[in-house]
Amino acid sequence: MNFDEIIERRGTHSAKWDMMEPIYGVPAEGGLPMWVADMDFRPPACVQGAVEKMAAHGLYGYYGDDASYKAAIRWWLAERHGWQVEDGWIQTTHGLVNGTALCVDAYTAPGDGVVLMTPVYHAFARVIKAAGREVVECPLALVNGRYEMDFDAWDGQMSGPEGAKAKLLVLCSPHNPGGRVWTRAELEGVAAFAKRHDLVLVSDEIHHDLLMPGQTHVPMALVEGIEDRLVMMSSTTKTFNIAGAHTGNVIIPDAALRARFTTRMAAMGLSPNSFGLFMAEAAYSPEGAAWVDALCAYLDGNRQVFDDGINAIPGLASMRLEATYLSWVDFAGTGMEKAEFTDRVEKNARIAVNHGETFGKGGESFLRFNIATPRARVVEAVERMQSAFGDLQ
Amino acid sequence: MNFDEIIERRGTHSAKWDMMEPIYGVPAEGGLPMWVADMDFRPPACVQGAVEKMAAHGLYGYYGDDASYKAAIRWWLAERHGWQVEDGWIQTTHGLVNGTALCVDAYTAPGDGVVLMTPVYHAFARVIKAAGREVVECPLALVNGRYEMDFDAWDGQMSGPEGAKAKLLVLCSPHNPGGRVWTRAELEGVAAFAKRHDLVLVSDEIHHDLLMPGQTHVPMALVEGIEDRLVMMSSTTKTFNIAGAHTGNVIIPDAALRARFTTRMAAMGLSPNSFGLFMAEAAYSPEGAAWVDALCAYLDGNRQVFDDGINAIPGLASMRLEATYLSWVDFAGTGMEKAEFTDRVEKNARIAVNHGETFGKGGESFLRFNIATPRARVVEAVERMQSAFGDLQ
Ligand SMILES: Cc1ncc(COP(=O)(O)O)c(C=O)c1O
Ligand SMILES: Cc1ncc(COP(=O)(O)O)c(C=O)c1O
Repeated sequence: MNFDEIIERRGTHSAKWDMMEPIYGVPAEGGLPMWVADMDFRPPACVQGAVEKMAAHGLYGYYGDDASYKAAIRWWLAERHGWQVEDGWIQTTHGLVNGTALCVDAYTAPGDGVVLMTPVYHAFARVIKAAGREVVECPLALVNGRYEMDFDAWDGQMSGPEGAKAKLLVLCSPHNPGGRVWTRAELEGVAAFAKRHDLVLVSDEIHHDLLMPGQTHVPMALVEGIEDRLVMMSSTTKTFNIAGAHTGNVIIPDAALRARFTTRMAAMGLSPNSFGLFMAEAAYSPEGAAWVDALCAYLDGNRQVFDDGINAIPGLASMRLEATYLSWVDFAGTGMEKAEFTDRVEKNARIAVNHGETFGKGGESFLRFNIATPRARVVEAVERMQSAFGDLQ
Repeated sequence: MNFDEIIERRGTHSAKWDMMEPIYGVPAEGGLPMWVADMDFRPPACVQGAVEKMAAHGLYGYYGDDASYKAAIRWWLAERHGWQVEDGWIQTTHGLVNGTALCVDAYTAPGDGVVLMTPVYHAFARVIKAAGREVVECPLALVNGRYEMDFDAWDGQMSGPEGAKAKLLVLCSPHNPGGRVWTRAELEGVAAFAKRHDLVLVSDEIHHDLLMPGQTHVPMALVEGIEDRLVMMSSTTKTFNIAGAHTGNVIIPDAALRARFTTRMAAMGLSPNSFGLFMAEAAYSPEGAAWVDALCAYLDGNRQVFDDGINAIPGLASMRLEATYLSWVDFAGTGMEKAEFTDRVEKNARIAVNHGETFGKGGESFLRFNIATPRARVVEAVERMQSAFGDLQ
């Protein structure tokens, strides 16, 4: 568990490293990739060991008998999140973007609306639009530099023409970007909102394990009275940094809701790849849990270095993460145009980051920085940022 | 390349081995799994080496920069199949059942018909039906123990109500089951048939590399005049025995047809898993090619042992494979009911096989035997079959 180790990733088909130049114009030589959500750390030894064991055995045929895989999921969700699930509730999808897309297909028709609380993970809107559905953007309220639900405003929106079309709500819990861990009261509010407007509620909890010290995540499934319209999504891929496996779990307690999902999944001819299943089973273990605890402590250290450094720059505000490693920095206070602050980050600091407006309404003045990298690089990023915005000091 | 090596696969989450008892009632202890289409051989060392290298590096994040992956595909298709493709034509799906399913979604609407030449790979009908489309079964003609196209009969069918609904034709080339390598003339007939009935033509060529000595596969893309309605599908997963990776390529030269496919794919939030991409790139290489040549020679030896042994049993007829390792045995000559010959195979011979009727019309009196296993097991299977049907001698 040496999170300080610098591991060369260039030339390994890493999207984060090898695409930063073609996508953002940040040079591979000397650039710092702080965009797409994967980490520059190895997964726990149990996960790497699972891949090594597969590699050595040499047979990579069709996977069967997922009882131990499902048992590992059940164990993890009970042990780490206090949620008891049944094997039959679990569908394994090709990751959670695919999981979201299948929900859109299963629970809405072309022309229907899907509610997002923006700014939020950009791929949601991408699949919704690609499917010919409409995104209903309900903007989060920015209150004292932190996102809050704004049910009154959203109820108003929902009473209009957009609201009439809305059939589905995709919640991101914990929230990406910005890292809010929604409180039980807030989640109860979401459940009530979904009921009030007759929406199926998809709760994407992919970041549920990446909690800063002192934070507690409440699974939406533990909120009462929502089960009959609830789709839960979680995965090992963010937690254990194995996103290339593209394997996620869509967990649906309600039989009728589940049947609609599994029909769509069957029609899509999807069955999980074996690498993701082997790794997930190894990850959801006491050894995996100990690693996650150490990881979260390390990420909190990165967060502190990053926030201290960024918030020291006049006009910049890094939102305090309660979860995730995706820091959300507001440049509004600089008074600069988007093109200018982005150019400074990309061209002067040579850091590749996600552009705020891709996350929807409210994201325009922000950039998202992925701080899940050895601390030395976070320190380096802060120095580059201080220099790129040095005239503001 | 020691295809005779017996590698233990029980207890490794192998569908073929670990599901034969739950699905077919054939005991894990002493049973011979000859059903689902994966092989009991390791892939070439270059493929295993690619997995070992990934395992050792330890970072399994999002995959980016697929230029070398696509170059490998281009090389393979040109070198082995005489077909020049462009990078932009290639979509990488979650395997080819998923590829087929995406075609059904992209090119048909609920209630439309999809034409299959039966008996044919069972998953086609499964995804078509799951998507609420109708299967239009055009039965192949059994002529001198070998399948042939029956365009006259099919034209008749297409002029009826079934035909009016049909929008798509899924061709299996080479054919599974039965192993026909369609001739250029037959493929021209298929192309003309597709045009005559205004069908989009999906050519699933997943078995294109597994050719018996002396056979030549003609890619449908090399048939003239069909390009504007043609979807080609191929994959490394059957050829190199890496089906667990669930990675396939859907190659669409026509821009308009491709746009409909990519829209559906984007709506499904699919991007390929990195394990499949690394293995495919390693496989599509001179080393991979040499291995395939050796494999095909070995499979032909198995075929001979199997056919000789099975055809020696009065009433049984094993169709001579021109491609694939999926032997198709007709029990019609025994005069037995399906339940009886199946019971003898499963309970007496303790061999798990695919049931013929799952492949559609014309499959009822057949069982499908996967002979891609060390020769000693094929010999053992033949002995068990001769004993299970010993009273017929
Ligand atoms: C909220 C959220 N959902 C889903 C994903 C991606 O999921 P997958 O890689 O399983 O498609 C991400 C990745 O950052 C995410 O932040
Ligand atoms: C004709 C055909 N297509 C597709 C497949 C399966 O493809 P995949 O594993 O890529 O979904 C098979 C497997 O046997 C097959 O025979």
